[in-house]
Amino acid sequence: MLILMHATASPLEVDAVAAKVRSLGFEPHKMPGAQRIAVAITGNPGPVDPAHFQHMGGVAEAVSISKPFKLASRETHPHDTVISIQTATAAGPSRIGGGIFGIIAGPCAVEGREQTLTAARAVKAAGATFLRGGAFKPRTSPYSFQGTKLDGLKILAEARHETGLPIITEVVDSSHVEQVAEYADVLQIGTRNAQNFALLEAVSQVRKPVLLKRGMSSTIQEFLMAAEYVVKGGNYQVILCERGIRTFEPMTRNTLDLGSIPLIKRLTHLPIVVDPSHATGDSLLVRPMARAALAAGADGIMVDVHPDPDKALCDGPQSLRPEEFAELMTTLRAMAEVLKVSM
Amino acid sequence: MLILMHATASPLEVDAVAAKVRSLGFEPHKMPGAQRIAVAITGNPGPVDPAHFQHMGGVAEAVSISKPFKLASRETHPHDTVISIQTATAAGPSRIGGGIFGIIAGPCAVEGREQTLTAARAVKAAGATFLRGGAFKPRTSPYSFQGTKLDGLKILAEARHETGLPIITEVVDSSHVEQVAEYADVLQIGTRNAQNFALLEAVSQVRKPVLLKRGMSSTIQEFLMAAEYVVKGGNYQVILCERGIRTFEPMTRNTLDLGSIPLIKRLTHLPIVVDPSHATGDSLLVRPMARAALAAGADGIMVDVHPDPDKALCDGPQSLRPEEFAELMTTLRAMAEVLKVSM
Amino acid sequence: MLILMHATASPLEVDAVAAKVRSLGFEPHKMPGAQRIAVAITGNPGPVDPAHFQHMGGVAEAVSISKPFKLASRETHPHDTVISIQTATAAGPSRIGGGIFGIIAGPCAVEGREQTLTAARAVKAAGATFLRGGAFKPRTSPYSFQGTKLDGLKILAEARHETGLPIITEVVDSSHVEQVAEYADVLQIGTRNAQNFALLEAVSQVRKPVLLKRGMSSTIQEFLMAAEYVVKGGNYQVILCERGIRTFEPMTRNTLDLGSIPLIKRLTHLPIVVDPSHATGDSLLVRPMARAALAAGADGIMVDVHPDPDKALCDGPQSLRPEEFAELMTTLRAMAEVLKVSM
Amino acid sequence: MLILMHATASPLEVDAVAAKVRSLGFEPHKMPGAQRIAVAITGNPGPVDPAHFQHMGGVAEAVSISKPFKLASRETHPHDTVISIQTATAAGPSRIGGGIFGIIAGPCAVEGREQTLTAARAVKAAGATFLRGGAFKPRTSPYSFQGTKLDGLKILAEARHETGLPIITEVVDSSHVEQVAEYADVLQIGTRNAQNFALLEAVSQVRKPVLLKRGMSSTIQEFLMAAEYVVKGGNYQVILCERGIRTFEPMTRNTLDLGSIPLIKRLTHLPIVVDPSHATGDSLLVRPMARAALAAGADGIMVDVHPDPDKALCDGPQSLRPEEFAELMTTLRAMAEVLKVSM
Repeated sequence: MLILMHATASPLEVDAVAAKVRSLGFEPHKMPGAQRIAVAITGNPGPVDPAHFQHMGGVAEAVSISKPFKLASRETHPHDTVISIQTATAAGPSRIGGGIFGIIAGPCAVEGREQTLTAARAVKAAGATFLRGGAFKPRTSPYSFQGTKLDGLKILAEARHETGLPIITEVVDSSHVEQVAEYADVLQIGTRNAQNFALLEAVSQVRKPVLLKRGMSSTIQEFLMAAEYVVKGGNYQVILCERGIRTFEPMTRNTLDLGSIPLIKRLTHLPIVVDPSHATGDSLLVRPMARAALAAGADGIMVDVHPDPDKALCDGPQSLRPEEFAELMTTLRAMAEVLKVSM
Repeated sequence: MLILMHATASPLEVDAVAAKVRSLGFEPHKMPGAQRIAVAITGNPGPVDPAHFQHMGGVAEAVSISKPFKLASRETHPHDTVISIQTATAAGPSRIGGGIFGIIAGPCAVEGREQTLTAARAVKAAGATFLRGGAFKPRTSPYSFQGTKLDGLKILAEARHETGLPIITEVVDSSHVEQVAEYADVLQIGTRNAQNFALLEAVSQVRKPVLLKRGMSSTIQEFLMAAEYVVKGGNYQVILCERGIRTFEPMTRNTLDLGSIPLIKRLTHLPIVVDPSHATGDSLLVRPMARAALAAGADGIMVDVHPDPDKALCDGPQSLRPEEFAELMTTLRAMAEVLKVSM
Repeated sequence: MLILMHATASPLEVDAVAAKVRSLGFEPHKMPGAQRIAVAITGNPGPVDPAHFQHMGGVAEAVSISKPFKLASRETHPHDTVISIQTATAAGPSRIGGGIFGIIAGPCAVEGREQTLTAARAVKAAGATFLRGGAFKPRTSPYSFQGTKLDGLKILAEARHETGLPIITEVVDSSHVEQVAEYADVLQIGTRNAQNFALLEAVSQVRKPVLLKRGMSSTIQEFLMAAEYVVKGGNYQVILCERGIRTFEPMTRNTLDLGSIPLIKRLTHLPIVVDPSHATGDSLLVRPMARAALAAGADGIMVDVHPDPDKALCDGPQSLRPEEFAELMTTLRAMAEVLKVSM
Repeated sequence: MLILMHATASPLEVDAVAAKVRSLGFEPHKMPGAQRIAVAITGNPGPVDPAHFQHMGGVAEAVSISKPFKLASRETHPHDTVISIQTATAAGPSRIGGGIFGIIAGPCAVEGREQTLTAARAVKAAGATFLRGGAFKPRTSPYSFQGTKLDGLKILAEARHETGLPIITEVVDSSHVEQVAEYADVLQIGTRNAQNFALLEAVSQVRKPVLLKRGMSSTIQEFLMAAEYVVKGGNYQVILCERGIRTFEPMTRNTLDLGSIPLIKRLTHLPIVVDPSHATGDSLLVRPMARAALAAGADGIMVDVHPDPDKALCDGPQSLRPEEFAELMTTLRAMAEVLKVSM
């Protein structure tokens, strides 16, 4: 925290600011400059709200300078976190992070046994390393399809058994965490729950990795603070997921913020994947954005694949057909070789 | 839903679109225009995703045209909903809506008995009609003060008993709804839970009014859809709350969207109040924005008042002092008379 | 500028930062804190780009702390600037600022003599103090009506002569400044030219006041920097105009940022008016937002009034009819009395 | 344009809407649906403002359905436009579009002869096909370096002569177009002038290609409408440039919208390049975003390269060093081979 005084601030006003710093329990440092004086607080353990100072006499501006996330930061933990999951029927573990590009694919929603198994076999055949599928669906409209719930979880478990792929599925309420964790290998927190702190705390108590989607209006700092909730609770197995942010542009569902990828990798040791399907909402944009995610340095992608997108109950128009997904995988493998990334 | 064809679309392409409409279970209507043909679907019961058509041959654009909220809409229910609550110790009911401007005031967080009772007495004396106070606090950082929880609820109940003011307090997880409803008169859903559908469904089952804050990145339509979740569950007692949206402007915490007020009043019968404290995060902006809310046609305001903002554990810099709140009330009363609003 | 080092930064890294500060021509100040050290530069005459430091070893963050606008700031010039214009045929001057609420009204575009004179008489009769009207129209589509240009300027001059109202009209290119300044009393810079610095410099050389609209994506700081361009050129007669910013909300044309009003009045001595017509694009929202602007502390409003909005060539749907404007004026006068503002 | 009536609209209200359509000079088409009736206008030559209808009795919503850009649209002109420039001293032409990935590189600003020639030689050696460099600089602050102007143009011409690279430089005002066009091979319109229609019209009259940057708050539709201004004036040689949009995220200067690339390529025949330097403002993000641009299907990149970024007068922190640029080029060439793009 730095409190910058006006050029015309009186010594009394500077003293009042210093006294206020002390009254909050911190130590002030006066810094005389050529044109003005500033008062710094650098020893504070947590964040200090700049607003405490902004209306005081002589104060020009109060600026917060500390990074508020700790355990998730690369400063604290310089080495890449790698998520590694071995299912009972797989030959070897599925991995994301530390130079390994993970491929999470599957239907947006688990609609039924046949649809999910068909999708699971297709993505496995094309080289996916994780299976996604939603059993609990958060929907903007109460009149939309709300998911197959427990039945869906059981279908996912069957798909895991058959393909050996670890399953990633969303949990939408703290009261479901136990049940979902019984079936899932990775618990997904959706964008609308990105700041549902009760849910973040609940999943922090589970010994299963968490895939945390960026809130559609979360800053990168808030996104990492949400991860901090999970890590602080004791669960270090967090996969971040960039899935687009809300902007003024109406032609795409969200604006995929790929510039966040190299930035987030600088700030945190946690792996980050990209979901081009939900970011764009348009299957014609999914493959270009999946390729761009790899090129930008992401640790993986998460892609909707549906055996028959036209009949999908949820987000069909953004789903790839199995043959489109296979074609994408071929391109990604060739690119990964050039970019020296493991797949 | 209207599917606009290219000027150059062939009759076969138009037929394919019509067939696709039929395959989704609806009836197509071909509309020949001067330059191009369009295919309309007007009889569909729910929304149809425009993306089903946008990649078909000859299709220029597919536009969704139906309003997705129903029970909350003024089209369905033309008369203003009025929320009216009578506490055991009050002389008469507290009201919001239908031409009555409600005043919700109190501390951001219930920090302790003394602080809350002092605030409650002060806002009652100045003319507030509801007491606000948070016992469960959703905080961006896991290292920030998280609320006094059950103790806080008990303090609020005591403040209600003493002042007769109905209490409004936040519920942050579906598992707490029963407990909070035992104490609160109005259950508040915060901005970060604006699309926590499990929580919306939980409060829809309670026989107490709900104050629903707009998500910081919710469109007006999504805001009304969130209300629709509560109303559809059977709870028609919903108070909407505009509290600022997230924009590119960094100097205010959020951008208060007062233009939404007359628009929302045209679209829905539910009352809408404005929270200038959380919208701006700056006590010097609270009074101007509270006055502007009344002038814009809102049904009430929700204001943070703290006996000693400098010592507040949460959001002190946005809290009014009791004397500032009283001064605001005097101005609002004079304005209300001019604007022919009851207070 | 403050460069905050990591807790683990070595003395050599701190020295390298200090040396870098010196190499840029400034003086470094080392500030030891409880957990980390910071290096401050406070004597720099202009802004220093934080990015110079952000990739250096041991640097956690570099924060810019100086206010970049000077002549427009209240810090430099504490007293309100008042714009006062006396036309040849008026009884007294028209004023904006310093406690006087100015009323700028008239058609969005000067379409013809009859339409403009009718509108001018109507707004004058209802109490407007300035006449607005666009002769040069910046339009998103090259196929839309582009304005009546020189003919329009002459019609405005005739309307001024008849009503005594000073005229405000837009200038869209530096090559037109001389011509527009010959006719106009106030030169308007539109939102799309808010960072057209060549145009800002051109109007800074004119001895006529400038009404500067906020760019639809300008931060408050950028808005004041645009004003600084005009003031730095020697033209202190600047009226700021808040007209809505671009956000994710699609239901209103822009989001009117009324919270900016009290903030801008704290930061600058220049008067600020609100344009509710262009902010909302919807005549039903204009009156509530005009009332809210007065309640928020603005120095005036700028409102589209058209004798027959249904036939307007530009922005008809946001224009008030003369009788709606007169009704608004009645309400504003009653509110101004309560709020102790002169009109 | 489609006007959707309420389910409860009366036949009289429907007739009034039809009459209004006729009064605007168009032909109404009534479309009875299962639940409601709609009135369509499909033969209108230009856009009709939906707001004409939205307050009429019985009207639920009015939706605009026509694409407002024509000459720039792929619907009108299906084949890719290729920009090809041959300078006097080059062995062959430099190209962008139609499957050829163009490389535009050079200093943000022309600061002096030595700096520019050094940068030009370096980017030529590494394989750039165009030289960028700003002589006229639009700067947010009037106190920042404003460019070397005519001297800068002459230095660029010398750099072109020596390297054979065509030069791209910005023009900031209509009064400079003639002078800049005398020196430049491609005229750049910057993001702050993206809706400076006077300038767009001026460059539409020049027989040199135009590189048009997306406005930082332009929707894709507005971006293409700006291109339409240039094309409509007779200049079909337009290169679009995505350079990031303004969002709520503060950690990057802008949010690079790579999802716009495949979308824009679907909508228009004009080539589109990406500027990762101005989009991110951070040299560590430039290479990942340049790679991502190629992977997303862009027709080229535009990158700041400076011989000594630490001493740059403008945007040094976002500039690549020559060796970083050369390393990027090596990677891009390897990726282009895999992606079957010519470089």
